[in-house]
Amino acid sequence: MSRHADSKLDPSAEEIRRWGDAAVGWMAEYLHCVRELRVYPETTSRDIRERLDEELPTESLPFLKVLDTFREVVVPATRQNAHPRMFGYVQAPGTAIAALADLLASTLNANLTAWRSTPAAVEIERLTIDWVKQIIGFNADAAGLFVSGGSMANFAGLAAARRAKAPDELMRKGAQAFPRALRIYASEETHHSVAKAAAMLGIGSDNVRYVAVDERFRIRIDDLEAKINEDVAAGHLPICIVGNAGTVNTGACDSLEQVSETARRFGLWMHVDGSYGGFATLAPSARACLAGIERADSISLDPHKWLYLPVDCGCVLYRDPETARATFAHEAEYTRVIAQQADEAFAVWDYGPELSRRFRALKVWMLLTSVGVRAVGESIEKDLACARHLESLVRASDDFEMLAPVELSIFCFRYVPAGLKGGPEEQLDAFNERLLVALQRDGSSYLSNARIHGRFALRGCVMNYRTTHRDMEILLMDLRRLAATL
Amino acid sequence: MSRHADSKLDPSAEEIRRWGDAAVGWMAEYLHCVRELRVYPETTSRDIRERLDEELPTESLPFLKVLDTFREVVVPATRQNAHPRMFGYVQAPGTAIAALADLLASTLNANLTAWRSTPAAVEIERLTIDWVKQIIGFNADAAGLFVSGGSMANFAGLAAARRAKAPDELMRKGAQAFPRALRIYASEETHHSVAKAAAMLGIGSDNVRYVAVDERFRIRIDDLEAKINEDVAAGHLPICIVGNAGTVNTGACDSLEQVSETARRFGLWMHVDGSYGGFATLAPSARACLAGIERADSISLDPHKWLYLPVDCGCVLYRDPETARATFAHEAEYTRVIAQQADEAFAVWDYGPELSRRFRALKVWMLLTSVGVRAVGESIEKDLACARHLESLVRASDDFEMLAPVELSIFCFRYVPAGLKGGPEEQLDAFNERLLVALQRDGSSYLSNARIHGRFALRGCVMNYRTTHRDMEILLMDLRRLAATL
Repeated sequence: MSRHADSKLDPSAEEIRRWGDAAVGWMAEYLHCVRELRVYPETTSRDIRERLDEELPTESLPFLKVLDTFREVVVPATRQNAHPRMFGYVQAPGTAIAALADLLASTLNANLTAWRSTPAAVEIERLTIDWVKQIIGFNADAAGLFVSGGSMANFAGLAAARRAKAPDELMRKGAQAFPRALRIYASEETHHSVAKAAAMLGIGSDNVRYVAVDERFRIRIDDLEAKINEDVAAGHLPICIVGNAGTVNTGACDSLEQVSETARRFGLWMHVDGSYGGFATLAPSARACLAGIERADSISLDPHKWLYLPVDCGCVLYRDPETARATFAHEAEYTRVIAQQADEAFAVWDYGPELSRRFRALKVWMLLTSVGVRAVGESIEKDLACARHLESLVRASDDFEMLAPVELSIFCFRYVPAGLKGGPEEQLDAFNERLLVALQRDGSSYLSNARIHGRFALRGCVMNYRTTHRDMEILLMDLRRLAATL
Repeated sequence: MSRHADSKLDPSAEEIRRWGDAAVGWMAEYLHCVRELRVYPETTSRDIRERLDEELPTESLPFLKVLDTFREVVVPATRQNAHPRMFGYVQAPGTAIAALADLLASTLNANLTAWRSTPAAVEIERLTIDWVKQIIGFNADAAGLFVSGGSMANFAGLAAARRAKAPDELMRKGAQAFPRALRIYASEETHHSVAKAAAMLGIGSDNVRYVAVDERFRIRIDDLEAKINEDVAAGHLPICIVGNAGTVNTGACDSLEQVSETARRFGLWMHVDGSYGGFATLAPSARACLAGIERADSISLDPHKWLYLPVDCGCVLYRDPETARATFAHEAEYTRVIAQQADEAFAVWDYGPELSRRFRALKVWMLLTSVGVRAVGESIEKDLACARHLESLVRASDDFEMLAPVELSIFCFRYVPAGLKGGPEEQLDAFNERLLVALQRDGSSYLSNARIHGRFALRGCVMNYRTTHRDMEILLMDLRRLAATL
């Protein structure tokens, strides 16, 4: 082996310090200046590829040169998620402490498969999962683990629901051995990862029954119960109701107490998708919306959303650890635990779909310990206030209108130019779609879109400790400026 | 919001530099000294918990104090995966460049859901996936993406196999709508994540048929074909053969050319689990073993194994992009792509189970670009040579014996004390199990275990650019020293 290879895979302490200084230097500068960057780049696939070396690299290059390419080619051609006016989708900014935690996690390279694989890292995960349960008000004996995101958490929750409510042997014998369709109920506003999970699980995406919503986009309990009764009469096997703690379109929170009542009455599993809204329990003004979340059998949460952590860090909690274990545990000799006590025999892979697992808990622990939940809650409260401020500005204006009530920090609205007032809705849709594209290309603010009662909506979500009331005002100014050019 | 909260979630450039210096300083020192640490800690759950603050943190703590706790409590109480004599399981050490890449990725916080979400990051993923295809010799038009690890890659490959070979509407209507059992074939030595995936998918773990192996632990084609014929006669629906490119027990490589022939003949999907061995294609001496891997319909690979990257970074490749897309694509208005060209309309979530996705490709790109594949291949070759060196030492000794041939870098052997030679096998099993526990507790070297032809084996795997021939000799000295105390 050449010395050259050695020195790159296993550099000297001095080299590591030099490279690390350069990386940290970029980080400090980037986070300091991110407010001044375009939120969204003007670029094409071709532009980027022309600036990257396409050949499989045979020989080595100095790390600092590679870092330059990252800084000059990659960074400017991404959406700046840390920008205070990045309102698209449900996107958190990340934070410096968590990025440093990821540096430490990748250096230590703990692999959180089981306690004995990395004792202290698994203890940190168990401790932070306990903290998450306290934040949500979930029962102290519940199990849980960090997964890559809300989609995987919904998948895990529905897998557990099937294990609990469908015949025991289904996971061994296969779903074809049991002729009844398994049915899942969720409001029309539910995230598509629920249907995707049902498809992957072999339950079938058509067996997710979409329930009508009320004027605040919350699941209608009458329609929910009617659909369950209908399915029972048809010979299907209802297994699970999914309640939303913050929908992706409008931030609606289903009445989780009522969902829980219905689930109990019909003997169904209650899964709550709290990927967006769950951590809003830290903000006093959102707590009433989320009442009943603690009654769920399983909950999806995303620390990489409202704990402001970088991806990936999702979380699934299960009320009954034994059901989770029965869902995911598979025995094999090479994973057999030898000569250890109960706490030390704990295997994380028994509770989720993954085996190798990154030390995701480190950034949760470092963030919560360094910042404290009070400050995180204050920041979430500030995000909610920003969305309400936008709503009040829109309601006070004569050129914008709200298309849905603000429940948490999501706002859906549209621009109504004087010339289109009272005109055909299709024209307003087309105008706002063009306005959205213009806004995204402009680079000062970023929104995404939603369909509300069939109409095209400009949609934003505030999830950034950097965002202020002033940013909400700039967003409306940006839209007016661009609307004038269309 | 208090200033205090602000300053922790959004620290000044100066604070970031100070915190970053401290983190990088630890990193340089840790990687410099890791050879001198105990591989495995002597600790208990209770020991660790007593040194951690258990209360949900309400207020903030200085970051440097939190870093101290990480350094003093977490680091010493984990297994040191970077240590040159960490031979347990299939565990890579990680490397400094990749840890820095993870710092950059978490700072930028790109979320690789779709091209438009982060153009340059998705281009880097597509580029590095192209490089991975070249390394494996896979067809240039194939699709692929990075996932969290081999378990998820096997899950994705089997989901695609089902989409291709079972009735089209299964994922919509559910598996109960199609009464035939779907059957998957894999050798007895196959990783348990295949059965776990079958259970999660609703195919059923019992529908994974385990095929006998030959004396080198490779799938027996005669038994494979007999089982397929048997299932067809019984009315089941064979869908997939899983070939192993490096089994977890002994590193066996199935004859992938023969597996491919059989798959073609019966019209089945061929999935290759190359999580452990796939990247050994970079080492000339392993290439013959892996011949035929390029004929697969889907392949699981783990850059976080033999590309020496930290977890998590698995990879799945699909020969036919359209099948992958049909498996995972779900349409929703809020993910609808507006006003973009083909390359720019690319949505990564259409090809795998996740939606939010970390910028895993950054560490792959930085590692390959900085180090070059030639040096990585040389290091893999060196790992293979270390395992062969151990084998020759064992064969030349009169107190150790090999229990399986060394195929790649895994070695299975046992200690045979003079007093137990020719005695009952159970006594040798018990002795070696005690010896393994003693070795793990001793802290100088670390092995895990396997069951070989019913016998307890000491099992090691070399996957570390730091490991030398001398380390293999120290391992045997450690075992002899400890055996003398039993």
